[in-house]
Amino acid sequence: MKEQHYKNPIPTVDTIIQKGSQILLVKRKKEPFKGLLALPGGFVNEGERVEDAAKREAKEETSLDIELVDILGVYSEPNRDPRGHIMSTVFVGKISSNNKVDALAQDDAAKIEWINLEEVNNTHFAFDHQKIISDYEKWKRSGRTFWSSRASMLL
Amino acid sequence: MKEQHYKNPIPTVDTIIQKGSQILLVKRKKEPFKGLLALPGGFVNEGERVEDAAKREAKEETSLDIELVDILGVYSEPNRDPRGHIMSTVFVGKISSNNKVDALAQDDAAKIEWINLEEVNNTHFAFDHQKIISDYEKWKRSGRTFWSSRASMLL
Repeated sequence: MKEQHYKNPIPTVDTIIQKGSQILLVKRKKEPFKGLLALPGGFVNEGERVEDAAKREAKEETSLDIELVDILGVYSEPNRDPRGHIMSTVFVGKISSNNKVDALAQDDAAKIEWINLEEVNNTHFAFDHQKIISDYEKWKRSGRTFWSSRASMLL
Repeated sequence: MKEQHYKNPIPTVDTIIQKGSQILLVKRKKEPFKGLLALPGGFVNEGERVEDAAKREAKEETSLDIELVDILGVYSEPNRDPRGHIMSTVFVGKISSNNKVDALAQDDAAKIEWINLEEVNNTHFAFDHQKIISDYEKWKRSGRTFWSSRASMLL
């Protein structure tokens, strides 16, 4: 099998969840980027669909059930994660109406933070999540999708 | 490192290239699905961005330079490929204006075929490519993105 002879990027997922003018972030409990803010997300397990991984990771890290709205993009710049070549499918999600609790940090998240979209440019994020959130602002206007090398000035 | 302890899906890419009322397909030279039609695509190598893999595979299999327009979806149903859990980022692309040649089968492609979108429902495709092309028709109307389990009737 071809895939046994070659190495491939490892897939992760991340989700942007906006409520009002804020988006939901988690403060990372572990390295890499320990202490920095990141979108809720994590590794996709073998046998698990990416959409299910996105919902599972959001639930594990923030206690919230979410629904997925669209795919924002797929980010796979080889140096975006210091652990190796790790790619991310990034979803736009929303909080399900059936949640009985507010967001509460768990698992790999030390803390939950709601950040105003206006503060994004002045905040230090883990990985390439600042670019991703910046692309999300463009997505809201144009509906276009994104990837690491997309020249996004005009979108 | 967490990713060393778990198994993860292996990433591939596929691209939908429409010209007039037809889309570009390749007849598979090898198993699985040898002899069936598939979108141009293949495995993403470690160190390679998904967008670059999509352009490389289109070039290798059809001899054409392409440009990427958008991401249609990410398909990761665990049983979509009999070789194992293989996920695909599917791009919508177009033929670059700088091509000096027509599509010509190469590499893993035994033959190039241009299929009318109207014939898609009556054609037997490799993998889940019939569903992907059906989602593409919806994408053209709605601009929405897709994944394996998305209930797409209303999109």
